[in-house]
Amino acid sequence: MHDDVAIDTDRFRERFEAYAEFGATDAGGLHRLALSDADRRARDRFVEDLRDAGLDVRIDELGNVFGRYEAGDPDAAPVLVGSHLDSQPYGGRFDGQLGVLTALEAVQAIAESPVEPDRPVEVVNWTNEEGTRFQPSMMGSSGYVGYEPVEELLDATDRDGVSVREELERIGYDGDAPCEPPEAGVHSFLELHVEQGPVLDDEGVPVAIVDGVYGLSWLRVTVDGEANHAGPTPMHDRSDALAAATDAIREVNRLPQQLSADAVATVGELAVEPNSINVIPARAEFTVDLRSYDDDAVDRGVERVEAEVAAACDRHGADYEVERVSRHHSLSFSDRVRDAADRGVAAAGVDARHLVSGAGHDAQHLQTLTDAGMLFVPSVDGYTHTEAEYTEWADCVAGARAFAHTALELATEN
Amino acid sequence: MHDDVAIDTDRFRERFEAYAEFGATDAGGLHRLALSDADRRARDRFVEDLRDAGLDVRIDELGNVFGRYEAGDPDAAPVLVGSHLDSQPYGGRFDGQLGVLTALEAVQAIAESPVEPDRPVEVVNWTNEEGTRFQPSMMGSSGYVGYEPVEELLDATDRDGVSVREELERIGYDGDAPCEPPEAGVHSFLELHVEQGPVLDDEGVPVAIVDGVYGLSWLRVTVDGEANHAGPTPMHDRSDALAAATDAIREVNRLPQQLSADAVATVGELAVEPNSINVIPARAEFTVDLRSYDDDAVDRGVERVEAEVAAACDRHGADYEVERVSRHHSLSFSDRVRDAADRGVAAAGVDARHLVSGAGHDAQHLQTLTDAGMLFVPSVDGYTHTEAEYTEWADCVAGARAFAHTALELATEN
Repeated sequence: MHDDVAIDTDRFRERFEAYAEFGATDAGGLHRLALSDADRRARDRFVEDLRDAGLDVRIDELGNVFGRYEAGDPDAAPVLVGSHLDSQPYGGRFDGQLGVLTALEAVQAIAESPVEPDRPVEVVNWTNEEGTRFQPSMMGSSGYVGYEPVEELLDATDRDGVSVREELERIGYDGDAPCEPPEAGVHSFLELHVEQGPVLDDEGVPVAIVDGVYGLSWLRVTVDGEANHAGPTPMHDRSDALAAATDAIREVNRLPQQLSADAVATVGELAVEPNSINVIPARAEFTVDLRSYDDDAVDRGVERVEAEVAAACDRHGADYEVERVSRHHSLSFSDRVRDAADRGVAAAGVDARHLVSGAGHDAQHLQTLTDAGMLFVPSVDGYTHTEAEYTEWADCVAGARAFAHTALELATEN
Repeated sequence: MHDDVAIDTDRFRERFEAYAEFGATDAGGLHRLALSDADRRARDRFVEDLRDAGLDVRIDELGNVFGRYEAGDPDAAPVLVGSHLDSQPYGGRFDGQLGVLTALEAVQAIAESPVEPDRPVEVVNWTNEEGTRFQPSMMGSSGYVGYEPVEELLDATDRDGVSVREELERIGYDGDAPCEPPEAGVHSFLELHVEQGPVLDDEGVPVAIVDGVYGLSWLRVTVDGEANHAGPTPMHDRSDALAAATDAIREVNRLPQQLSADAVATVGELAVEPNSINVIPARAEFTVDLRSYDDDAVDRGVERVEAEVAAACDRHGADYEVERVSRHHSLSFSDRVRDAADRGVAAAGVDARHLVSGAGHDAQHLQTLTDAGMLFVPSVDGYTHTEAEYTEWADCVAGARAFAHTALELATEN
């Protein structure tokens, strides 16, 4: 127990409001795509704040920004804490940003406390977590843990053909440090994030300790029928790609209840060709996002989607292709970090429950490198990736208190 | 009977092949959008051919091109024959073009025959029948019969904001003649077109006499749900706009069999927002094209679509709007022209049946002004509005023979 670690709630709030101005939208959200000018302004302020807090700033090749609090044994593996400052297009102010500022506030609170940690603590802002401008998502942490090669990530381009490398140079964040863990390794990683689901809000609990992350499969389905005139072509003479796709999508939506209690399935993208009011669709292309903490349920779901597409296309005389775009297996965070978080929320005197995350986070990549874990705070009504995303400030503060104590637990454990 | 009206099959074929070069696609189709450079080249050749055939050329304000064969009483109302030279984007070579060239060949055959008609015959190329670049479709004939004001039609713009007026000037088809019928009126209008459906091809019949045109309703449906993250949002906590739209579209596709034997329903356009693989759709917008020769069936269909959208959105907690975009009632062509066509196909010695058109044509507009009618030739496998559109040349010739005899019947009847 460290009763003497206290966050500065005024500083925390002022900072949150100030950062929310970089890329602020009229509707109270945030439009701060990775490596945009708005992202640059947020990063500039972050570097300034790290320096003001007495931390050593380091920027790596992928633009990940680190601020190191030197404590305890300088050769020890540091505790790493942080999240991301980029946002979804017209997204919310809490997704990512709250986690970076909570981490910074926690490190300052530790530095200002009488407690001396046994090892350094580093705050990090990971580059391009969202992945809406440049793919893949969770780019900075991916390069850091060696999941994807840094050179390939630097070559990724946006829709206008502009590369990550060019944008890093343009905004001045093409750092000199190699994108890799320190030689001593990383002791542990801790990230705070908004839940992006309704559970904490529904239950009125301010904090969740995250046990793991759902497994996920992304599919891309292409259905090929025959374009023809919507008037003179009798119904029985048609091969309507959208009609076939519609039948399949309906089954995708009914799938989760047959798979597991926690499974979810979403058709988020759909495009029709030639997309003309009086032409029978020749092609319909849609995506399927299928998730569960139970990997068997995800695998069975993928097979069921393929079978439903085949059956629907057979009925409509259409051809099809189901491409398995990506598959991430479910992941459990480290017991060590979960235990530290249990002690941390207790020390902070904050109510908490355990949860599994349906969304992906940088912490997943870090779990492949070291012991990683996460804390969630509520998303009101579960809204996320929209300007309506909201978290009560009291919950942000409760989360920051729990986070500071958990980080200190990690920085002082033997 | 006029056994002595004979079309020149070589000239007819050479001309068809030559015109098919203006806007030819690699796949053997035609990409000749209204008032494009390709359309200009086809028009230039058409004017040249009209003059070579000894016809008086007249171009009106909307760019409709007329070639007048002076015969019989110069003050008599002329018989008008023709179709359109513009094409769908990457459409076929037969839709429209075949009708214009058949009309031209028929008038030349009549002029070259020993028969002297009682009244003039005019060939016409109507501007912008397809309506894919500029809306509304059937523009030239609409202005001509006074269905829509010529000034409004001239102001219509394409996606780049370029107006019909500007394009007519640019390609040199902003004619001096007023866009209106002659003072003497129009005796009758006859148009040949490809069927754009499978019936003639299925039955091996080369020509159809068209009794009328289906009634049509176009609807635009907007479904509003709630965007949210596809991972952490439980199925029971969603309002997925695409899931609701999908349920409704499925019912639209099942509707025709409950309405009438000839009813057809098509969802041709569908757009999803934000259209992201891991975001629950906030909005889905789709169109419905509903047709039958039975107007009651169309009206009942519209009500059923509205009810199905309401029921689906209710189940998914989504909001919706159903906009009735347009409604054209079914139309019967003139008995006088149908009778002339019955005599014409008999005189030509061509097999024919009667049919109703599921597609709209310029002849519909003309029916509001005078006695109008149409002949169809087969579309192989019913394909149309695609580069695969095809009609056997023997059927084109049979159609042209029937057309020339029908036109002569109209030009010589008392």
